[in-house]
Amino acid sequence: MAVSSRVRFLILFIFGIFIAKGCNAAATDIELDAKAQLLHRLDSLNLLLYTFLLILTVLTIWTFKHRRLRFLHETGLAVIYGLIVGAIIRYGFTTNSAIQHMPVVPDNSSKYNQSVPPDTLWLRFPEDKGGGVIKNKTFAYTFRGEIYKQDNEIDLKATFDPEIFFNIILPPIIFHAGYSLKRKYFFRNLGAILMFALLGTTISSFVIGVLMYAFIQLIPHLASSFTFLDTLYFGALISPTDPLTIISIFNDLHVDVNLYALVFGESVLNDAVAIVLSGSIQNYGERYQSGSGGFETVAFFQALGDFVGIFSLSLFIGATMGCITAFLTKFTRVRDFPLLESALFVLMSYSTFLIAEASDLTGVVAVLFCGICQAHYTYNNLSTDSRHRTKQLFELLNFLAENFIFSYIGVSMFTFPKHHFDPGFIFAGFFCALVGRAANVYPLSFLLNLGRKPKIPINYQHMLFCAGLRGAMSFALAIRNTVSDARQAMLTTTSLIVILTVIFQGGGTTQFLSWFDIPVGVDEEVEGLSYNGVRSPYDSVDSAGSGGEGGFGDLDVHRERTPPYNSMQDGSLPGGSGTKGNEKALLARIWGDFDTKYMKPLLTHSRPTLLETLPVCCGPLARILTTTQQMTQDDVTRHVDSDSDLHVEIREMERRRTSIQPRKRNDDLDDDDDDDDEDLRIIGLEGFIPLRTL
Amino acid sequence: MAVSSRVRFLILFIFGIFIAKGCNAAATDIELDAKAQLLHRLDSLNLLLYTFLLILTVLTIWTFKHRRLRFLHETGLAVIYGLIVGAIIRYGFTTNSAIQHMPVVPDNSSKYNQSVPPDTLWLRFPEDKGGGVIKNKTFAYTFRGEIYKQDNEIDLKATFDPEIFFNIILPPIIFHAGYSLKRKYFFRNLGAILMFALLGTTISSFVIGVLMYAFIQLIPHLASSFTFLDTLYFGALISPTDPLTIISIFNDLHVDVNLYALVFGESVLNDAVAIVLSGSIQNYGERYQSGSGGFETVAFFQALGDFVGIFSLSLFIGATMGCITAFLTKFTRVRDFPLLESALFVLMSYSTFLIAEASDLTGVVAVLFCGICQAHYTYNNLSTDSRHRTKQLFELLNFLAENFIFSYIGVSMFTFPKHHFDPGFIFAGFFCALVGRAANVYPLSFLLNLGRKPKIPINYQHMLFCAGLRGAMSFALAIRNTVSDARQAMLTTTSLIVILTVIFQGGGTTQFLSWFDIPVGVDEEVEGLSYNGVRSPYDSVDSAGSGGEGGFGDLDVHRERTPPYNSMQDGSLPGGSGTKGNEKALLARIWGDFDTKYMKPLLTHSRPTLLETLPVCCGPLARILTTTQQMTQDDVTRHVDSDSDLHVEIREMERRRTSIQPRKRNDDLDDDDDDDDEDLRIIGLEGFIPLRTL
Repeated sequence: MAVSSRVRFLILFIFGIFIAKGCNAAATDIELDAKAQLLHRLDSLNLLLYTFLLILTVLTIWTFKHRRLRFLHETGLAVIYGLIVGAIIRYGFTTNSAIQHMPVVPDNSSKYNQSVPPDTLWLRFPEDKGGGVIKNKTFAYTFRGEIYKQDNEIDLKATFDPEIFFNIILPPIIFHAGYSLKRKYFFRNLGAILMFALLGTTISSFVIGVLMYAFIQLIPHLASSFTFLDTLYFGALISPTDPLTIISIFNDLHVDVNLYALVFGESVLNDAVAIVLSGSIQNYGERYQSGSGGFETVAFFQALGDFVGIFSLSLFIGATMGCITAFLTKFTRVRDFPLLESALFVLMSYSTFLIAEASDLTGVVAVLFCGICQAHYTYNNLSTDSRHRTKQLFELLNFLAENFIFSYIGVSMFTFPKHHFDPGFIFAGFFCALVGRAANVYPLSFLLNLGRKPKIPINYQHMLFCAGLRGAMSFALAIRNTVSDARQAMLTTTSLIVILTVIFQGGGTTQFLSWFDIPVGVDEEVEGLSYNGVRSPYDSVDSAGSGGEGGFGDLDVHRERTPPYNSMQDGSLPGGSGTKGNEKALLARIWGDFDTKYMKPLLTHSRPTLLETLPVCCGPLARILTTTQQMTQDDVTRHVDSDSDLHVEIREMERRRTSIQPRKRNDDLDDDDDDDDEDLRIIGLEGFIPLRTL
Repeated sequence: MAVSSRVRFLILFIFGIFIAKGCNAAATDIELDAKAQLLHRLDSLNLLLYTFLLILTVLTIWTFKHRRLRFLHETGLAVIYGLIVGAIIRYGFTTNSAIQHMPVVPDNSSKYNQSVPPDTLWLRFPEDKGGGVIKNKTFAYTFRGEIYKQDNEIDLKATFDPEIFFNIILPPIIFHAGYSLKRKYFFRNLGAILMFALLGTTISSFVIGVLMYAFIQLIPHLASSFTFLDTLYFGALISPTDPLTIISIFNDLHVDVNLYALVFGESVLNDAVAIVLSGSIQNYGERYQSGSGGFETVAFFQALGDFVGIFSLSLFIGATMGCITAFLTKFTRVRDFPLLESALFVLMSYSTFLIAEASDLTGVVAVLFCGICQAHYTYNNLSTDSRHRTKQLFELLNFLAENFIFSYIGVSMFTFPKHHFDPGFIFAGFFCALVGRAANVYPLSFLLNLGRKPKIPINYQHMLFCAGLRGAMSFALAIRNTVSDARQAMLTTTSLIVILTVIFQGGGTTQFLSWFDIPVGVDEEVEGLSYNGVRSPYDSVDSAGSGGEGGFGDLDVHRERTPPYNSMQDGSLPGGSGTKGNEKALLARIWGDFDTKYMKPLLTHSRPTLLETLPVCCGPLARILTTTQQMTQDDVTRHVDSDSDLHVEIREMERRRTSIQPRKRNDDLDDDDDDDDEDLRIIGLEGFIPLRTL
């Protein structure tokens, strides 16, 4: 982890460390030691800076939550604090770079004809030149990057290593998104989500790419430095929307679950799509290499193949690793040792990311689907202790990682040395980002509404448009490569778009929701889409956060809980069974059946067992793959639900029901693909009477 | 994070990645991109290697636990797996370094007369030399280290950055040690622990230093390269003992709590002592700089001052940050948002480490005492959710970090390029490490026994001697600086000592315990030391792991729980109240009183409140510092205990007691300084009747 010299010296200044200490030493060894120690201290100060920013953010978030202020969200806060601290570092102190650099040339004896610079240099002072006491030593230097403007005192140490973003910060965020996905509503809206995420992000990328290219032709100094591929790459990196801010507000306000599923599902998946897309564009560039920004059919189709191949292979790796973990936790008694079990869970999930990255696939996609599988299968096999532990661990990691990224975006706006502010490009970027988002949401909603029974109303479409804040993924992609001027301009524009959308769009979410009359405070079981209209928050109920993973990422304990009879009343409103059949695609239904019959019995302790679902000829195999626990379990005491709150909830529901009125039965559960219902049926206290419409 | 070229290429080999991909590119930019991508993939593979090693370790540990094999401990396993993988990487594949290096000399125009090498080099190929397409570009290179043997193809990328050990891996381990400390027994044996840790480690360091120096004089080729300061530094880094392995076995076997406290307390503190001591020795070296290994009084006393100053300042910072966290959690309602609360807790604790490191103090000491304070004060203010979350989080982090270090020690034995195997030095190192340990344990036990009422019996002394495995801290200190031959020989010897002690001493712990007739399966409340003799495991009871933090780090759920009446029976054995007064030092008693009267009421919600303990004149202040919760709380329903298990335990105890017989009263509670008793008194279901002798 590195820090700009400005940051370093500000901090040195503040903490009053004796840099001079040890400088009286004559021997090079001791000076090297002292230098290493100084660097260690500076690294610590750098980490400390961000830790303090996070502490500040946490305390302010708490104040806001406590005082129920909603005009600014935590990620917005983190960005703003980052900006302030960055500005202080930049303008509050004079630059006084202590980094000594020395121009060197190759040794006389060496010949070098490679097209890339060497990885390491060995520096040795010749006899006739300077070097003082270090004349007879050889020092090694490693490659850092290219320098464009020699007069520009670029501090190369200031690059926050993008490796850390990609290998350490991103995986827990993405895994958490998968692990905490409300799978029920996700699968119910799968068609729309896939449409928006896969097709929508691609459309958005191309629209932005083309528009940007057109814009750039109008500005002469930009036209020379950007190729069409560059603008297309920019389109790909600016297209993914960020779930964090919006989703946590949606959670607090209990926005209609289907809108929630659309926004969350889309933004989780489009991160994955964007990273694969940008990789394909780079590969296309490598293959085509005309540099003119032209178009070649073969390379294009290869890129398309890349896209499909990488995405599906990554998905496959993620799902496979998830299933292996489920298998391990089912067939070993590792659950007797919750610590080992949790460690295994974490390690398997992280290795999924690494395997995909190491195989030149996309770790983000792999870890996302791994998270979904872990939640769907493995979670059911875990001990109670491990369930809590893994949930809470990833929740915390996600929280810290998110806020770290947003603080860093703020700080880096001022301290990152490779920014390139180009007003024309920035303006064009903002405009195109808006147009790209619109080109994703509105046409696709129109298309979807042609075939979709509960249509996506226009106010939901507006909300989807407004929910298009840019976030961590865009920034991470932009900062990954900042060698050329074009890339630096992209980074600057991306940073600005992220900062402004997070602060203003994020902060305005509550306002947008009321402008567009989006139902808030909605019961999870009551689908807003079916009504197609406005419902007053007063007829809302609160069972959200208990039926599935709702309470998972939820910070707000100040929910107003309406009395249970409201829940009962709402349960009998129209819109339940009638429209459900239409919501499911054939594919989803087939998968649901397959999952219930084979995958769940194989990978979890759920029923029916494989003995019941496999053909008779496979009997012996089925016997091996069915655990004693699976055979002998007692329906009531088992905890196979994917959220332990659920179990309590069911008991409470039963209590309510028996004390108030019998429930209406709902018979179309056969084509039901979602696992929560699955679990409900399994734990169901009265056997197989469906609890869905409770 | 970097990896040796061997590792990299092995892994490349295994996973069959197409390195050649992108090599047809002509443009330097694209090649640079491809190179960056390759490095990213290699970093991923490197991380993956260790992740797999950890997964393997977890699965094997589980198997061992499941089959109740005790001959090898988990850390031993991690080391052995590491060794095997390291050996495969080293000998299974031919070296094929792909790192290109190029010798360079300073540019003609540059003059350089500093005594340290420059931080960065700017490489530019002159017109008349090679460089192919990269002729007109400037590249930046950063300093990595010195090269000693030019013919030795040292891959500088292979250094696993010690910064990562010190900034990322160590803090959670040390914090966990403090956070999970059984404070009750720790404070009861405080005198002995401080004696062993502070004085003992210093004695051990000097004994080892002197002996090693003597040895080295016998071997000519060593005598020239080692100074007395070098051997003293070696003494300091090899002296700290590692708690991990022993303690987890002690936990499983329920070894007598006082022995547990002695071993754990000493090994936790001596890590801190060793790191400060080695720093002081380095500073002494910087000040003295004769290089002859002579002795100078002023520098010596400055080093002594350093030692005392750094230790106490670090302790102060740690304790202060712990108290600030307690204060924050007491006086804000941040506990309403457990996620924010946990995040604050983690961030405050980590920032303690960073503040100390950034101020040139010792983060390890600070974070250790921060952990103790967090457990003592802050823990009581946390919400139930945060208590579980923080405990489980640090338990998991500690587990992963520990096993990572031990795997790495194994792997690095073969792959780290800077090993220097010197049989003489290694043999001397082993011998001196043993002698140093003996010089710590036996004389100090003798001294302690002069003033200590429950003496430390000879079998306990033997066990203390055998518990002296070396571990993570020694390795971390040794790998921090490997520039000179002497330091490299130290690293090799340290690695070997760590590996062999962990495998053999760790694996033999169970055997040692039975050889020395140490009581195992002991009730926490029954102090083995008082009996001075052998007790059969059959009259043991099991309340360990419930009265304090016992169950915290405990992996073993297979304990044999003896029926409660045994507990009752043991409780009435002699050795309780009679010896207790003698165990407490005056200082400890004063601190205990102060803590109960002022610190706990100020920093937690416990009673008595400051209104009761402060003099009347401070009434208004006391009122401000006393929360409503503190005033209005109900004694029975409050959870101020430092471990939520305790509460359940108390209820159970009460149940038992009321169902069996009334307990004997113990009146000497006033001079009782330990907080668990404090808590017992507060939660006590019958008001102020002490529960201690239950």
